[in-house]
Amino acid sequence: MTPLFRQLTLCGVGLIGGSIALIARRAGLVERIVGLGRTQSNLDVALERGIVDHATRDPQEAAAGADLVMLATPILTFPQTLGAMVPYLPEDAVVTDVGSVKGWVVRELEPRLGPRMALVGVHPVAGKEITGAAAADAELFRDRRVIITPSARSTTDALQRVEALWRASGARIERMAPETHDALLAHASHLPQITASALAAALAETTIAGHWAAAYGAGGLRDTTRIAASSAEMWRDICLTNRDQILAGLRLYGESLRRFAAAVDAGDAAALLELFELGRRMRERLG
Amino acid sequence: MTPLFRQLTLCGVGLIGGSIALIARRAGLVERIVGLGRTQSNLDVALERGIVDHATRDPQEAAAGADLVMLATPILTFPQTLGAMVPYLPEDAVVTDVGSVKGWVVRELEPRLGPRMALVGVHPVAGKEITGAAAADAELFRDRRVIITPSARSTTDALQRVEALWRASGARIERMAPETHDALLAHASHLPQITASALAAALAETTIAGHWAAAYGAGGLRDTTRIAASSAEMWRDICLTNRDQILAGLRLYGESLRRFAAAVDAGDAAALLELFELGRRMRERLG
Repeated sequence: MTPLFRQLTLCGVGLIGGSIALIARRAGLVERIVGLGRTQSNLDVALERGIVDHATRDPQEAAAGADLVMLATPILTFPQTLGAMVPYLPEDAVVTDVGSVKGWVVRELEPRLGPRMALVGVHPVAGKEITGAAAADAELFRDRRVIITPSARSTTDALQRVEALWRASGARIERMAPETHDALLAHASHLPQITASALAAALAETTIAGHWAAAYGAGGLRDTTRIAASSAEMWRDICLTNRDQILAGLRLYGESLRRFAAAVDAGDAAALLELFELGRRMRERLG
Repeated sequence: MTPLFRQLTLCGVGLIGGSIALIARRAGLVERIVGLGRTQSNLDVALERGIVDHATRDPQEAAAGADLVMLATPILTFPQTLGAMVPYLPEDAVVTDVGSVKGWVVRELEPRLGPRMALVGVHPVAGKEITGAAAADAELFRDRRVIITPSARSTTDALQRVEALWRASGARIERMAPETHDALLAHASHLPQITASALAAALAETTIAGHWAAAYGAGGLRDTTRIAASSAEMWRDICLTNRDQILAGLRLYGESLRRFAAAVDAGDAAALLELFELGRRMRERLG
């Protein structure tokens, strides 16, 4: 296949970035891959595994010659990383990212672009329980959802080339507005995270008659709190960058929770059956 | 082994009751097992599998000769089932149950006992995703937690014999007051169920720009709502019988959720990190 980009510079050579690098290379979609990182040991792994052709910790060096820059570090670092690179990038460079929040990325990054640069926001909705270049996997995104969020600075050409790159991953590609993405993910991902973390936090110190209450939970408690084990830093950053949509999700959930509590309080058998049934049917639909 | 009981009458020959019947028979702890049920097809399965020696839909017939009665039907039916049997039971019969709530069982059943009968409440904390005699399994309780809740009408002799029966299951046996049990399970089991069902119910109808939001969830949403698929009738009954303890659990959870929401609202990075970390550490401790 004709390469789409001469040089992909990958900022953050972890699970997500490393995986898309492996995919781009396998499909012959980029000629050269440069990795920008903070940790030499991780960059060494990326070099050994052939994920990157060249590794550096210097943004200026990483920027040189990059017609595609992919931001795959923690989301709050994007503005600073891009800012340090912009003066040294080719003037028609395409910037893309893999952040879990999109409106914030567009608002923060578009003003930092050179006049002929383009931005294409992407969110690959894939697991992040493991990290690092060692975990990169060219099959990571197969049949998963990858959401591309065109914005004012997404040129048609940049959009098509970034989308072609992701199409090689075997993922289901979908385009939508950044704001739609953020509202959907706030409800489907960020809200479940907070409900799980809030439950785990509530039970962290709860003892009854000398017993740690959580020890008496079975598979239900384990399932319901499983994602509370995720990275606190990542979820802090998502909450900081998708505040309004998450608050909307929390209001919706709070209302649902109050309906359950009111039915328990009133001993209302019919209301309880209806509420648990509503949840049961939704879960069956989810599959 | 010398039999502990001449006749176990099992009221409700489902997953839990059927499994303990198989265990009691295997260990030679009961001479005869009679199954009381509502559905002839399930009783036929129990007979075919050798779970019961005799099956009936008549409480009077089931009561005759039973020195151990085990209530393993939905919890709200216990008082009526026991009431229908008491006049026909041996006067020194031992009554036990496998209900998920214990204080209510004690309050409802003790006044219905004959003067020389005993009550021993038991809660085997084991999964209930599948039901019916066909699913009964002598290994169901191995290494699981079985909580025995002595009450005013638990004689030492009855307690020891019921406990010996459960010891044959390979479960970890523990004794505690019914109220302690109910408070622990309200937090460790009933609360997670409501948080999961309330999340599923909140997302049941939520669409954003024409998309069903829940479809955009990944493994996190699936894990966090998995138990919402449980029986609505069973959870209605648990909420009706453990009201006060569940409300206490919901208050604790609501407070935790409000702390998360306040930190999101304020964009308080330090508070968010601390809260997610608290949840993460708890989940790691849970294992």
